[in-house]
Amino acid sequence: MITLASDFGSPYPAAMKGVILRESDARLVDVTHELPRQDVRAAAFWTRETLPYFPPAVHLVVVDPGVGTDRAALVGRVGDHAVVAPDNGVVRPVARRIAAETGEDPEWFTYEYDDPASTTFHGRDVFAPAAAAVHEVGVGELESLPSITPADDAVDLRFPTASVEGDEARGEVLVVDDFGNAVTNVPGAFLDGRTGDTLSVNGTDAPVETAYAAVEPGDRLVTVGSHGYVECDVNRGRGDDAFGLEPGDDVRLRF
Amino acid sequence: MITLASDFGSPYPAAMKGVILRESDARLVDVTHELPRQDVRAAAFWTRETLPYFPPAVHLVVVDPGVGTDRAALVGRVGDHAVVAPDNGVVRPVARRIAAETGEDPEWFTYEYDDPASTTFHGRDVFAPAAAAVHEVGVGELESLPSITPADDAVDLRFPTASVEGDEARGEVLVVDDFGNAVTNVPGAFLDGRTGDTLSVNGTDAPVETAYAAVEPGDRLVTVGSHGYVECDVNRGRGDDAFGLEPGDDVRLRF
Amino acid sequence: MITLASDFGSPYPAAMKGVILRESDARLVDVTHELPRQDVRAAAFWTRETLPYFPPAVHLVVVDPGVGTDRAALVGRVGDHAVVAPDNGVVRPVARRIAAETGEDPEWFTYEYDDPASTTFHGRDVFAPAAAAVHEVGVGELESLPSITPADDAVDLRFPTASVEGDEARGEVLVVDDFGNAVTNVPGAFLDGRTGDTLSVNGTDAPVETAYAAVEPGDRLVTVGSHGYVECDVNRGRGDDAFGLEPGDDVRLRF
Repeated sequence: MITLASDFGSPYPAAMKGVILRESDARLVDVTHELPRQDVRAAAFWTRETLPYFPPAVHLVVVDPGVGTDRAALVGRVGDHAVVAPDNGVVRPVARRIAAETGEDPEWFTYEYDDPASTTFHGRDVFAPAAAAVHEVGVGELESLPSITPADDAVDLRFPTASVEGDEARGEVLVVDDFGNAVTNVPGAFLDGRTGDTLSVNGTDAPVETAYAAVEPGDRLVTVGSHGYVECDVNRGRGDDAFGLEPGDDVRLRF
Repeated sequence: MITLASDFGSPYPAAMKGVILRESDARLVDVTHELPRQDVRAAAFWTRETLPYFPPAVHLVVVDPGVGTDRAALVGRVGDHAVVAPDNGVVRPVARRIAAETGEDPEWFTYEYDDPASTTFHGRDVFAPAAAAVHEVGVGELESLPSITPADDAVDLRFPTASVEGDEARGEVLVVDDFGNAVTNVPGAFLDGRTGDTLSVNGTDAPVETAYAAVEPGDRLVTVGSHGYVECDVNRGRGDDAFGLEPGDDVRLRF
Repeated sequence: MITLASDFGSPYPAAMKGVILRESDARLVDVTHELPRQDVRAAAFWTRETLPYFPPAVHLVVVDPGVGTDRAALVGRVGDHAVVAPDNGVVRPVARRIAAETGEDPEWFTYEYDDPASTTFHGRDVFAPAAAAVHEVGVGELESLPSITPADDAVDLRFPTASVEGDEARGEVLVVDDFGNAVTNVPGAFLDGRTGDTLSVNGTDAPVETAYAAVEPGDRLVTVGSHGYVECDVNRGRGDDAFGLEPGDDVRLRF
């Protein structure tokens, strides 16, 4: 199985699929090709939150604002999973998440390539062939590929940590999802036992609830989202607009 | 085969796919994840118009504004097809449509679950596991699942019926499709033998045609759409804008 | 393998998939359903740039502003590939491209049909069944289908050719991709050995570079895109906006 995630929209992912299918009979599963464009941090978040649900697979992740520069192509292995991506940090968080779940340490490799057909579409010309090659040789045997060498200093990416003290938490909006839910980095435990209480989000009040429909359509709420973090939402509406929040914004939450 | 339909956009459907693929080798087919957001009626329409074309399958449909409340998870069986969805009526019309085609009556079951990992993403934590379980045990054997009990009073959803008298029809816009075609609930037979005639739609005139290209680009027409209903369209343009129509609007059609 | 490309958005492609899967166990691969709406030329470009990367397959392409008129349904064969599409030119460029790569001449056939269930959705009622039938009988045997007859005068579509004289090229914007890159028809060779030089695009200057990230975020550049043509781009932004270019616009490039 090869999963595919990118910020390519349409129709560039098709070229990657074609390239892979020329080399492999792998089942292909689209994760998404609508990742926020050229936003490595958002891609790192969303792949961390989706790929660990899959059975062992080769995970191709291409969000690559540095395409054509001398950034390397990276292959990682964590247990029976492999990740293939540009060396810009995008797959480090998902590798740590899978590692935490499987107890296996990630191993990192550089995938050597020369003279790709383009300088602007390495998803097609570098990463898709790499994913197919890793899949065909097998994740457990990937270092037998002649194009693979150990990577000592892969670029890392870590999400900021929130601080929680008593009734107050300070953190950041990590992403806004397609529904408009503003996902912070404040751990959901901050809301434990507080259902029905009022929380101030940068001065805007909203009740803590466990279901969107606990408030009227159009009304604000704060809840623990499916990622385990505090989210600022609106029932049948957009939380980002109602709370005035964008990815990267600081948030101060106070009971 | 498991088909997937939701209003999740990107990337939440990927988590559902991962969860299913951990439990099943089923072929997965994306129906759409761009259903009008949190619009149960539109989802009921579009699944009724697409799922019956499939061979027997488990159809996962998640449009769920009541997620986290005490609405049940529903499993239906109609012949060799199964539907898995929140108990909000969304899969009742498609079940009736398949029943009409196969001659089999739908049977309804509640899928019991407790303590899902989230209160906001039952697509991942309740419905995807349910679909995988139904697929693995087999549609014909689904009541052998310990989590399944008969459902006596599943929520129903019915589309309004148009009234037709001679040269006049009164109905409603059911949905607007991605092309901007405003699909009414007036049966296409209302236009039988009327090609070339002029129809008034809430006072706006347009010719009855059997092809978009029968009128100039940008011009209005009325036709029988692929769903069998009267549609208000524009050749290479948007009928909803040109006729001033939105889902739920009343329409009065007069020759 | 059957690939699917259309301008249908959501959820109409699902009906095509269902229809095919009732007749065939073929692997289905979505190329895209977000082709520029009812834009035959853009669809011809994008299918030419993606389908040749696939292994031999039946390629279903439905961008069909003439649906319901008397335009024919076309089936083409080039080597082990088949294309199935409306007879409006949309698959002629991809057939030529595959022919150039395989050395096989395209052969064209008309797919006869009568009384499809709708006049507005031949993707579901004509082209999907045709693709399934071609797949099931086998590309090499497709003329054994009773619905197939040789097509003598299929509609053609050719992209305009740019003219290059010394330091000046005159051409046209063929498409704008999802990133906002304005892809011209000027061959990339026009930029050979010019990296770092300044090029005027209709009077707007930009440097020739081999990577988006060679310029600051938000700055213009000109590069050879993955299609082999000169593209007008912005690093982490939209080239179409920054250069004031739309598909079909004339471009005059001067060093």
